Amino acid sequence: MQGQELPAEIITIGNEVLSGHTVNTNAAKIARRLGELGIAVNWTTTVGDVAEHMREAFQAAWNRAQVIVTTGGLGPTHDDITRSVFCEVFSRTLVRDEMVLQNIKELFTRRGRTLTERNIDQAMVPTHTEVMMNRWGTAPGIYVNEDGRHWFMLPGVPREMEGLLEHEVVPRLLRAVGERAIVRRELHVVGVPESHLMDRIDGIPGLEQVASLPDSTKGEVTLRITVAGNERATAEAEVARLEGALRERVGEAIYGLDDETLEGVVGRLLTERGMTISLAESCTGGLVATRVTDVSGSSNYFRLAVVAYSNAAKEMLLGVPHDLIVEHGAVSEPVAKAMAEGVRRIGKTDIGVGITGIAGPTGGTAEKPVGLTYIALSYEGGTKGEKFLFGGDRQMNRWRAATAVLDMVRRHFLGKAQ
Amino acid sequence: MQGQELPAEIITIGNEVLSGHTVNTNAAKIARRLGELGIAVNWTTTVGDVAEHMREAFQAAWNRAQVIVTTGGLGPTHDDITRSVFCEVFSRTLVRDEMVLQNIKELFTRRGRTLTERNIDQAMVPTHTEVMMNRWGTAPGIYVNEDGRHWFMLPGVPREMEGLLEHEVVPRLLRAVGERAIVRRELHVVGVPESHLMDRIDGIPGLEQVASLPDSTKGEVTLRITVAGNERATAEAEVARLEGALRERVGEAIYGLDDETLEGVVGRLLTERGMTISLAESCTGGLVATRVTDVSGSSNYFRLAVVAYSNAAKEMLLGVPHDLIVEHGAVSEPVAKAMAEGVRRIGKTDIGVGITGIAGPTGGTAEKPVGLTYIALSYEGGTKGEKFLFGGDRQMNRWRAATAVLDMVRRHFLGKAQ
Repeated sequence: MQGQELPAEIITIGNEVLSGHTVNTNAAKIARRLGELGIAVNWTTTVGDVAEHMREAFQAAWNRAQVIVTTGGLGPTHDDITRSVFCEVFSRTLVRDEMVLQNIKELFTRRGRTLTERNIDQAMVPTHTEVMMNRWGTAPGIYVNEDGRHWFMLPGVPREMEGLLEHEVVPRLLRAVGERAIVRRELHVVGVPESHLMDRIDGIPGLEQVASLPDSTKGEVTLRITVAGNERATAEAEVARLEGALRERVGEAIYGLDDETLEGVVGRLLTERGMTISLAESCTGGLVATRVTDVSGSSNYFRLAVVAYSNAAKEMLLGVPHDLIVEHGAVSEPVAKAMAEGVRRIGKTDIGVGITGIAGPTGGTAEKPVGLTYIALSYEGGTKGEKFLFGGDRQMNRWRAATAVLDMVRRHFLGKAQ
Repeated sequence: MQGQELPAEIITIGNEVLSGHTVNTNAAKIARRLGELGIAVNWTTTVGDVAEHMREAFQAAWNRAQVIVTTGGLGPTHDDITRSVFCEVFSRTLVRDEMVLQNIKELFTRRGRTLTERNIDQAMVPTHTEVMMNRWGTAPGIYVNEDGRHWFMLPGVPREMEGLLEHEVVPRLLRAVGERAIVRRELHVVGVPESHLMDRIDGIPGLEQVASLPDSTKGEVTLRITVAGNERATAEAEVARLEGALRERVGEAIYGLDDETLEGVVGRLLTERGMTISLAESCTGGLVATRVTDVSGSSNYFRLAVVAYSNAAKEMLLGVPHDLIVEHGAVSEPVAKAMAEGVRRIGKTDIGVGITGIAGPTGGTAEKPVGLTYIALSYEGGTKGEKFLFGGDRQMNRWRAATAVLDMVRRHFLGKAQ
């Protein structure tokens, strides 16, 4: 590995991680991302917000490594001493950075809040360093390039850490290690359990370049292809070959690539067709609507959702016949279909969806157990229903039901001309 | 903290953890368990299966700490060198332990598998150590008690690690530190930014026993009190004192304790009063309903939600007057109030809530910027509205709006008899 030429270390700073109350996912994310650049992490250290320990960790990392990434200790509280300890160890002083201060002020103005002395202190950065602007929060990232070392200080808040890692750290490291081609592509799979998926793709040549990342709550699996090589064109060709082989085995269950989400794909399919959708939810309690409207621009195709928990609401708002509920029960395919038809009618949309089920942990019976869910889709030309049995807890049953709804809409359009 | 008397370190060994492909949950579990015994972990190190790095980590830990727990590197493969490196650093040799061998043989017989040379090698343990029998797998745990150090070597497989931790490590440490009480309590705060909260609680005696954990997406902060002492009653009294002091400064912004969630507290307040709620959402797109129905038993007080994205839906389903939208715009206090009143009427509930705003990233204007949100609450006796300006991205604006809704309902009941 070329990474041996640039040994790396990660230092996680913070009592919360050290005490085990926060699991150190930051270190894992950084190590994986560096690994993709061919930079091997040799050492990971976690210390608390204690100057003495931080000093020792900083000094040791400087002696052992050439790429050092720290997280944590850049916040506004008195525990946040990463910058001052860094100054102490590497003989620097703290000076105010006007750009950072401006960034903090703007953030506070946008949020309509008053700036405190603590927040202004966050604009103090060590001399002879480069500020990496944090677009996700107030704590600036700091970069030091000296004696062949690349030292990055990142905040500990995962969202801010990830933003700076991707947009500030990775580009700087790519320049340092030389353009080594790393080509990555993610294939998102829905509706196939991971173990079945593994059986399907077994035996594909070069499969060691494919990682499978399951999201058991959502009921999705991501297949991540990573190919490293000296030439981009060769790496790209290998990625394309693997994608082709995976698609041949997995087929339509692959719903999207890279940054695409299932709700985003559904939105795109609707937008392409100039079609609209409305939702009638029971057991999912608004989760399908939440996911559909997570997509910016969803107001172009999403009209309304009715979350009808009570039978009265199903009857009154969606026009589900009282007798239908009495005869089949609220959790039944006929009721799901009536909900879908009802919401399509009142929403005046092309597609109407109905979902009814038992999320649990209570409400299940021998005949209708927790996890039983009916989903129906009403469209010009008819209404179709599908039955599911999810075997998880309340949260998992709700998420998997929402995923199944979105996938049913997606499959409805597959193979149909726009 | 008495823990200072027995400083502890954790060393995680293994390429999988180092490369980030496995998140280091072992270290978090060990640190939490040790913390409960009053033993503070000061340092956590992760190294790969590399003798040179392991030697350095072992030597440093021996010099710094009195309790050392290592995980990993005890398996049957050639990468598993924890025992041999330990022997090298601490001048010991490996000898076969007949009890361990017996244990391994029995496990293989039970599983109907054939013993290999590699497995027999697992029965080799360093001299002058104590074997901790592993009932969950083949790799023995090893304990060294020398020069006031307690050194534990545990396997990396979480199930085996946890079994040995609980049944072998904890009892030995309890004998070393004596019985000890750790009392913990979490106070959840809503509606106050972390930096303002820090200013409010500044100067409270014993504040070093309080950690602040912000959740910036939700817009909540948790204050976690942890008190360790020789007597439970004393520690409990100190926790109560700190809780009292924090409540005096933070007041009603503290919505709950420990496992309580904001949606759970709202549910409890409604249940206690035998009251019901319905929701009219626009910018939150169903997120408030999703959070409300996340609570098991919410069907007792939640009736329905209408997610009305389009103006037509607001008018038709919620009865918001067309002229009101034309005059004030869909994102305005009068429309939020009409939505709240409309949904309360059709849901026939005690409380009706209306939310309208601009989640972004598009749709904002100079007059009505992204993040502007109006929330209204309709109840027997009137309707009240509130204006918010959230300065985040789409996801954050939606989550903070949902938190603000739930908090507005909570505050509505504060100080009122049930």
